[in-house]
Amino acid sequence: MQTTFFTRKLVNKLPLAIVACASLALSSLNAATLNTAEQADMSSLSKTALNSDLSYQLVESLTTEVGPRMMGTPGDAKAIVWAVDKMKSLGFDKVWTEEVTGTQWLRGQAEAKITAPYPHNIVAIALGGSVGTGEQGLTANVVHFENLAALKAAKAGSLKGKIAFVSYKMSRHIAGKGYGPAVGTRVNGASIAAEKGAVALIMRSVGTDSNRVAHTGVMRYKEGVNKIPAAALSNPDADLLVNQLKRGKPVSFYLKLTASIEDEQIIKSANVIGEITGSESPEQIVAIGAHLDSWDVGTGALDDGIGVAMVMAAAHHISKLENRPKRTIRVILYAAEEVGLLGAKQYMVDHKDEVKNHVLGAEWDFGVGKIYEMTPRVGPKGLLAVQDLAKHLAPLGVEFSGKNNGRASSDMGLLTDAGMPSMRLSADGSHYFDYHHTENDTLDKVNAKDLQQNTAVYTLFAYFAAQAEVNFRK
Amino acid sequence: MQTTFFTRKLVNKLPLAIVACASLALSSLNAATLNTAEQADMSSLSKTALNSDLSYQLVESLTTEVGPRMMGTPGDAKAIVWAVDKMKSLGFDKVWTEEVTGTQWLRGQAEAKITAPYPHNIVAIALGGSVGTGEQGLTANVVHFENLAALKAAKAGSLKGKIAFVSYKMSRHIAGKGYGPAVGTRVNGASIAAEKGAVALIMRSVGTDSNRVAHTGVMRYKEGVNKIPAAALSNPDADLLVNQLKRGKPVSFYLKLTASIEDEQIIKSANVIGEITGSESPEQIVAIGAHLDSWDVGTGALDDGIGVAMVMAAAHHISKLENRPKRTIRVILYAAEEVGLLGAKQYMVDHKDEVKNHVLGAEWDFGVGKIYEMTPRVGPKGLLAVQDLAKHLAPLGVEFSGKNNGRASSDMGLLTDAGMPSMRLSADGSHYFDYHHTENDTLDKVNAKDLQQNTAVYTLFAYFAAQAEVNFRK
Repeated sequence: MQTTFFTRKLVNKLPLAIVACASLALSSLNAATLNTAEQADMSSLSKTALNSDLSYQLVESLTTEVGPRMMGTPGDAKAIVWAVDKMKSLGFDKVWTEEVTGTQWLRGQAEAKITAPYPHNIVAIALGGSVGTGEQGLTANVVHFENLAALKAAKAGSLKGKIAFVSYKMSRHIAGKGYGPAVGTRVNGASIAAEKGAVALIMRSVGTDSNRVAHTGVMRYKEGVNKIPAAALSNPDADLLVNQLKRGKPVSFYLKLTASIEDEQIIKSANVIGEITGSESPEQIVAIGAHLDSWDVGTGALDDGIGVAMVMAAAHHISKLENRPKRTIRVILYAAEEVGLLGAKQYMVDHKDEVKNHVLGAEWDFGVGKIYEMTPRVGPKGLLAVQDLAKHLAPLGVEFSGKNNGRASSDMGLLTDAGMPSMRLSADGSHYFDYHHTENDTLDKVNAKDLQQNTAVYTLFAYFAAQAEVNFRK
Repeated sequence: MQTTFFTRKLVNKLPLAIVACASLALSSLNAATLNTAEQADMSSLSKTALNSDLSYQLVESLTTEVGPRMMGTPGDAKAIVWAVDKMKSLGFDKVWTEEVTGTQWLRGQAEAKITAPYPHNIVAIALGGSVGTGEQGLTANVVHFENLAALKAAKAGSLKGKIAFVSYKMSRHIAGKGYGPAVGTRVNGASIAAEKGAVALIMRSVGTDSNRVAHTGVMRYKEGVNKIPAAALSNPDADLLVNQLKRGKPVSFYLKLTASIEDEQIIKSANVIGEITGSESPEQIVAIGAHLDSWDVGTGALDDGIGVAMVMAAAHHISKLENRPKRTIRVILYAAEEVGLLGAKQYMVDHKDEVKNHVLGAEWDFGVGKIYEMTPRVGPKGLLAVQDLAKHLAPLGVEFSGKNNGRASSDMGLLTDAGMPSMRLSADGSHYFDYHHTENDTLDKVNAKDLQQNTAVYTLFAYFAAQAEVNFRK
């Protein structure tokens, strides 16, 4: 499944003219995937999407009228009503919800300060799923680790009564490659620190900004290990703490988190699904998705409001064509992605027997800038077809990566894993982690022009997949 | 005093070669202001400053070990001790403090939210000097004004029981020219709104960023007008409020500020002054200054920690020369600038009879990037001399503006107004108002390279002024 079709390296080594000739040759060998009328529809859809502000209006509406929408909060319930109403008003043929359940976690308040040697107030946020400290908080000396490996290497018992602090700094990258090396501390750091005797974990935020706004995100406790409170510090505050530690005096830290895990309280949310029903093969599904929930900070404009807006607008634009597409276009707005892909897991249960009918899928859940690359994960015939799609997307600045290993993003990755042919549409994420999981994830970060362009890409992708008379499967 | 010597426009119109020839002609007519040994000192000081991290170490120390230092807070008292100790350890010949008194204002906590039609938590901060709302807060409908002029034009009584909201957006400019049109609402908006019957003023922050971090800053109440609470909203929150108002439904807002004015409580601070005593004319003073206080948010790294660091380092570098400079170099770290130039006003009282001995002065209290321009405010002989200074600063990227109206910045402007010849050294302030008066004014915003360069400029300026055998006065 990880086969490389054309490696980018190889393509880059060939003179441009040869690459162009090769492409022409390929396309003339291969009859066009779409007929003339369909190709005209592609042009017209592209123009429509590039000139429409519908997706911007949708994310403006979601962030202004609903705002943050973490599972189990009033915002989550409002978002579901919002999505159903919008899909209906946008002319979807079918709209429904599918229940998703989980347990409640409450963030509460965070308070943090360095108490010695040089007292300072610190901006901190509880990691999602953390236990609290109790109302009185806790004060302990800080032990500093430069990264998770150093924390892992600490001797058993060496952190007894201490607060472990990991100061690893995430790096910036267009595809967000700095996230992987940074996020381990957030997910597993607390249990690793607890195993060494620590009373709490604090960490530099998983983020590339320099704002005094801390980044939350999900963490997990290891079975059988003491659950200790875990918080992220804003990056400037983490720097300050490092600078105090450098002076070699003991640094004492106060942390209060009133977070709580309400295990016994079952909460309900829902996947919201809408369809433009296929005219020839309605049972065949082109899936485009995003997640409807967000963290309870910011207004979830980027994560994942723009995704929600983009896939809803794409389906709407297609619904305005004279005829319904051949296949069904299904817009899936997943519940509870942030707290552990709960909506995606439920979808796999609810649609177990239908997975085989998902002909091609793509989710948006990463990035803030323009889509610059497409990477399919399809069978041999599908691969020829997506070369054709690439020609339609090229004027929008989207390049075929030359790879054939594109797992769908986020929630929809579970469908890829179950065999659904997929497309990864990669957007510029250089600044995504400046805002990710913070109070700063707000509408002003949305670039209306980029959103139009990206909506056009999703619109063309969905229409192409719905019309292409090809089996994208292996 | 506002005479233009060479307007930049004129210079820009002349071919470069002619400008260069004119400069050469001027300098050959005019004997060099400094002798050969002094010119060698200038080169050596420039090298020293460009290779020293002393000013960075100083701002790191001030922000890490002291932090925020608003007048009347423990940080202010710590900063005074810090400055005296540092000056002594840096080899200043004299170090002393001069008492400055004021009245206490306490920020307390801020809580804000839109309560209808779409509830949202809002990031807000009390303006400096605002009264509080009481513990229960207040809730009222919002009336929107696009700028201060619109608020002024509102009919008497038209805001009875309402919250006035001014959404004016500050623009970005290298010299901070967007500040003037924006800051009027902050300073005077509350009284203007109160005169129309408003119960509170809220405003978009005076800032160019898009962070959910609000900008504080001083405000004043008009005599005889009802004192109403005044707060700034973070810019994304102001956008959100505008977007809700656009929908045409009444928007209800809750504001709680626990700020308080403690008029009866006299608080003490101090100007901290250090000197490198002149060897030939010790009574003649070259003044370089910055303000030691900051707002109680952030760590005052840019406003005005870098200024404090720069002028202290400049004097230190000069003190390391073989001989003391001819004139005295006085470093003035003003108290209580933010709350109304209290230290500067006290300095004018304490040094009334000595103003005539201030031969040339410059303060740093603006900008975050490199110094790009110098504008003197001197007499005819001084103007010839600063042409010579310009030649020494040119390799550092500093251009003579061609104007002769450079009032010293901030506190030291009072000395300019009293007749002190002055120099304005303009730094790139394009990003200054992203951080100004916010929690984001922290060490990570300091560019160590730019700080070295700017320290070199202040060092050369101070040494040149101390050695130049010229009367800079009109």
